[in-house]
Amino acid sequence: MNTTTYAVTGMTCGHCEGSVRAEVAKIDGVTAVDVSAASGELVVSSDIALDDDAIFAAVDEAGYSAVRA
Amino acid sequence: MNTTTYAVTGMTCGHCEGSVRAEVAKIDGVTAVDVSAASGELVVSSDIALDDDAIFAAVDEAGYSAVRA
Repeated sequence: MNTTTYAVTGMTCGHCEGSVRAEVAKIDGVTAVDVSAASGELVVSSDIALDDDAIFAAVDEAGYSAVRA
Repeated sequence: MNTTTYAVTGMTCGHCEGSVRAEVAKIDGVTAVDVSAASGELVVSSDIALDDDAIFAAVDEAGYSAVRA
């Protein structure tokens, strides 16, 4: 299993977390998404290696911005 | 037309505004809902007199708290 941590900026509340979680969870191979507005941390688990760009695009789609933590 | 202003605490973002707007808009007689996370202001327009308690309950349902401004 692969687990990668990203730093997401702009999330303020549980709705924001939910938006990010929903978009990232759509990515093929993703098995778990942990996200915290308080810390800005996004932890993505997957059963295949994921392309960072797919994560960045999903977070962007949710309305936020991610970088590798 | 009746227009009443309330102060809502706890909203941080557009998702929060949307949650409040959606719940308040369900109330019978409501014709317009303006809500701002930045100011915490909720302005409800209606074509009948509304019970404040209905507004408070709707805002509570959305996860926030309102008082008369």
